[in-house]
Amino acid sequence: MKEKLTIIKVGGKIVEEEATLNRLLIDFAAIEGNKLLVHGGGRSATKLAAMLGIESKMVNGRRITDAETLKVVTMVYGGLVNKNIVAGLQAKGVNAIGLTGADMDVIRSAKRPVKEVDYGFVGDVKKVNAEQLGDLIRKGLVPVMAPLTHDGNGHILNTNADTIAGETAKSLAQLFDVTLIFCFEKKGVLRDENDDDSVIPQLTRADFDRYVEEGIIQGGMIPKLENSFEALEAGVGKVIITLASAIDGKQGTQITR
Amino acid sequence: MKEKLTIIKVGGKIVEEEATLNRLLIDFAAIEGNKLLVHGGGRSATKLAAMLGIESKMVNGRRITDAETLKVVTMVYGGLVNKNIVAGLQAKGVNAIGLTGADMDVIRSAKRPVKEVDYGFVGDVKKVNAEQLGDLIRKGLVPVMAPLTHDGNGHILNTNADTIAGETAKSLAQLFDVTLIFCFEKKGVLRDENDDDSVIPQLTRADFDRYVEEGIIQGGMIPKLENSFEALEAGVGKVIITLASAIDGKQGTQITR
Repeated sequence: MKEKLTIIKVGGKIVEEEATLNRLLIDFAAIEGNKLLVHGGGRSATKLAAMLGIESKMVNGRRITDAETLKVVTMVYGGLVNKNIVAGLQAKGVNAIGLTGADMDVIRSAKRPVKEVDYGFVGDVKKVNAEQLGDLIRKGLVPVMAPLTHDGNGHILNTNADTIAGETAKSLAQLFDVTLIFCFEKKGVLRDENDDDSVIPQLTRADFDRYVEEGIIQGGMIPKLENSFEALEAGVGKVIITLASAIDGKQGTQITR
Repeated sequence: MKEKLTIIKVGGKIVEEEATLNRLLIDFAAIEGNKLLVHGGGRSATKLAAMLGIESKMVNGRRITDAETLKVVTMVYGGLVNKNIVAGLQAKGVNAIGLTGADMDVIRSAKRPVKEVDYGFVGDVKKVNAEQLGDLIRKGLVPVMAPLTHDGNGHILNTNADTIAGETAKSLAQLFDVTLIFCFEKKGVLRDENDDDSVIPQLTRADFDRYVEEGIIQGGMIPKLENSFEALEAGVGKVIITLASAIDGKQGTQITR
């Protein structure tokens, strides 16, 4: 039987404010067994970019990453956010190690081809190095992954944190019994976006298709759920979408095949 | 017999300009056997700080690190500079892993006590985790260390890169036959600072004391050499001070006990 591994993805908002970050560190430290954290940092990147006079352009919720923006996200995701989480976890007895995809070649990506939109220095994941990550995890280390990858030719690329979490979960499912938890600002997938308590407790692919058709599920939740179903189909044991203050995965929406 | 390990410290100027960085990556990739790189990044930090309207204050060549400056150095050293080096080395087939002291708890420090000067969030090294670093190195990984440490209580601290290199070399001397190479803008320790070719090929502690007394060695070279002698006394096999374009250690000044 495979050992359990919990992969948690937290959004930018949670890790960028001291109070919510502290709460997260406590909750994450309390999770037993093997674990891995993937974080965002978009709000801090937007803020730093603005301070430097760089305009943040988003298309379909994705950041257009020109050369200057790439520097900003490399500093914010790989430096500020990542290292503060790592130091915070160390203080709680969690032997964290901060990683971008370039470190130990853990995530290789390819620059997204220019079609209708030129996303710039954005990378689509090609390969997650499950063996290296698995080695760290088995030694009791806790990877903390920034949403940055590399192309193998010396370039850092900006990669969506949900995608990093999903691809890492899929790859590590070869070695571990993976539970993937997406944390965000809502209690789960909502039946009514204006009612925080209208959480859908379980969601199958058939439910999802129906809800999308009916317009109940829309916007940024659609790629998140597509990621979730893909992960399940690739062998991830469980996928949960929940509130950041409920990262034990006991609440929220459980996605099932 | 212990395996060999080459530890190279490069200053900010070298890693911050594309042409010199590229040259360094090529030269570093060419070094055979176990290796570890420690980098600075001061010039980029000063530049980013200026763009953000933060004044860079230096005392005795050390940066006064207030809360805002700490964010800047965490972004620049831990993010921008570190990750670009790591991605660059990966492209040259070097399996690099970027680390601050917080990652895997590799370097613990204590905030420098306030005496005549309040350096702010600056850390004096307390302990280098030789075992963790040794594990990585033995697996064929190449640590790339940013000049940041942590205090074990959740705080990142700014630590001089020469100190990181010296302390890491001393600690790893338990496990490896260490050669420590400090690269900078001069060909070595100079007899005449206006004559680039006046390199002192070998320097003992007695020579050093005499040169300091005579005013031949002064300024920032003094702590660098103090570091070097300390490293030798702690078991480091060889210390060399040389030009960044000569990181094979075949030129420059060899420091001997």
